Amino acid sequence: MTDISNILLGRRTIRKYSSKTVDDKLLYELLMMGCRTSTTGNMQVYSIIITRDGKKKNDLAPLHFNQGMITEAPVVLTFCADFNRFNRWCQMRKAEPGYDNFLSFMTGAIDALLVAQTVCIAAESKGLGICYLGTTTYNANKIIDLLKLPKGVVPVTTVTIGWPSEKPEQPDRLPLEAVIHKETYCDYSGQDIKRYYKAKEERKDSQQFVLENNKETLAQVFTDVRYKKEDNIYFSKILLQVLKDQGFMDQ
Amino acid sequence: MTDISNILLGRRTIRKYSSKTVDDKLLYELLMMGCRTSTTGNMQVYSIIITRDGKKKNDLAPLHFNQGMITEAPVVLTFCADFNRFNRWCQMRKAEPGYDNFLSFMTGAIDALLVAQTVCIAAESKGLGICYLGTTTYNANKIIDLLKLPKGVVPVTTVTIGWPSEKPEQPDRLPLEAVIHKETYCDYSGQDIKRYYKAKEERKDSQQFVLENNKETLAQVFTDVRYKKEDNIYFSKILLQVLKDQGFMDQ
Repeated sequence: MTDISNILLGRRTIRKYSSKTVDDKLLYELLMMGCRTSTTGNMQVYSIIITRDGKKKNDLAPLHFNQGMITEAPVVLTFCADFNRFNRWCQMRKAEPGYDNFLSFMTGAIDALLVAQTVCIAAESKGLGICYLGTTTYNANKIIDLLKLPKGVVPVTTVTIGWPSEKPEQPDRLPLEAVIHKETYCDYSGQDIKRYYKAKEERKDSQQFVLENNKETLAQVFTDVRYKKEDNIYFSKILLQVLKDQGFMDQ
Repeated sequence: MTDISNILLGRRTIRKYSSKTVDDKLLYELLMMGCRTSTTGNMQVYSIIITRDGKKKNDLAPLHFNQGMITEAPVVLTFCADFNRFNRWCQMRKAEPGYDNFLSFMTGAIDALLVAQTVCIAAESKGLGICYLGTTTYNANKIIDLLKLPKGVVPVTTVTIGWPSEKPEQPDRLPLEAVIHKETYCDYSGQDIKRYYKAKEERKDSQQFVLENNKETLAQVFTDVRYKKEDNIYFSKILLQVLKDQGFMDQ
């Protein structure tokens, strides 16, 4: 097994960081690696907002539901779909940009997410720990205000980076066969689902989760507590409004 | 510089592949590494469709505008946002899934894209070459039909993988300072834009592009030829309809 295999197979998300800083030299090295990632038509329709300032992190924290990583990590990166820069260039060069639509948002989001993952792998290869914050799409409107993102820019994910001060257990994953399909999608029988989720359901921490939340099944912890329909609907409406406000819904 | 830095900084997209196969053992190793990627709430709301069959690749090719990589590469991977599997599990476990909305689509798309990028980096670390096909979001409806993707599943990107039979020049990238912002977004002045795009505009291949396409500026090659407003609008409408049809627009 090569080093990179060890890094990718042995990784875990890190939520607790030491007080040691991540200096600019190292950070820019990671970002340079990120920027070699594939990008649609070599347009690089993304931007990365670097948050280091303590005050800014305090302001950002509630927008991520006060998850402790934001204030504890030395570096917070917000990855954005960004057609603003590209549009500006077009306008200066007698070209009429036509990127105010949903497809273009997806193009920018894909660009931004691929760069984010490269930066994370680069960071982990240096011994740093990372954590993704899925809350970015929930509160995109407020993040836009705080980070002063202009029209054409939408935040899609946030990553905290720092030196690990914990080594948590690796979480479980579904068996590989559960997430791959050969040639065409082979839909799941009830037996398949039972088999694939068995180990997850039987884990001690899963059963603890069910107990703590007063639920009957692990799935109910997701549907009734962690990722509720009413929250999803509420944040879907906000996110679609954000796409409109930022100029991506003019198809 | 460590190995991984060399891989990430030295990479280029590979569009021409040798006839050598990529065996299942190696492919599954890459996919196993992919599945250790961060995933929202450890839900793993993605699926990966593996295309190896020659007939299937021929059918897939026109949906990617007949880009040669599809038929030439030994392996084609289509990465999908997938709540179908998770919903099935919920329904079997007396839990009512509330994931038929836009936020949930984005959650699945983010999951799928991060896995895709890990698989690509894993592949490149083994000496393989990869190419992303942005055409997946253009023809998602037809790809859904061909790969028999059920409701709850939307393809978001496609990657071809094989052993390189070319070593193209590394393409240019904008200077790092053009894509990063410290603390808040610092909008671009005309001077900034000129400075950041100067090297790109002055490249011989860029100037060739402008000439070949009978345009006045490089930006016009993008707006008038490669990524046209009318196409973006057309494919935006299809993609939004796909999200509706696949059950992600019930907010």
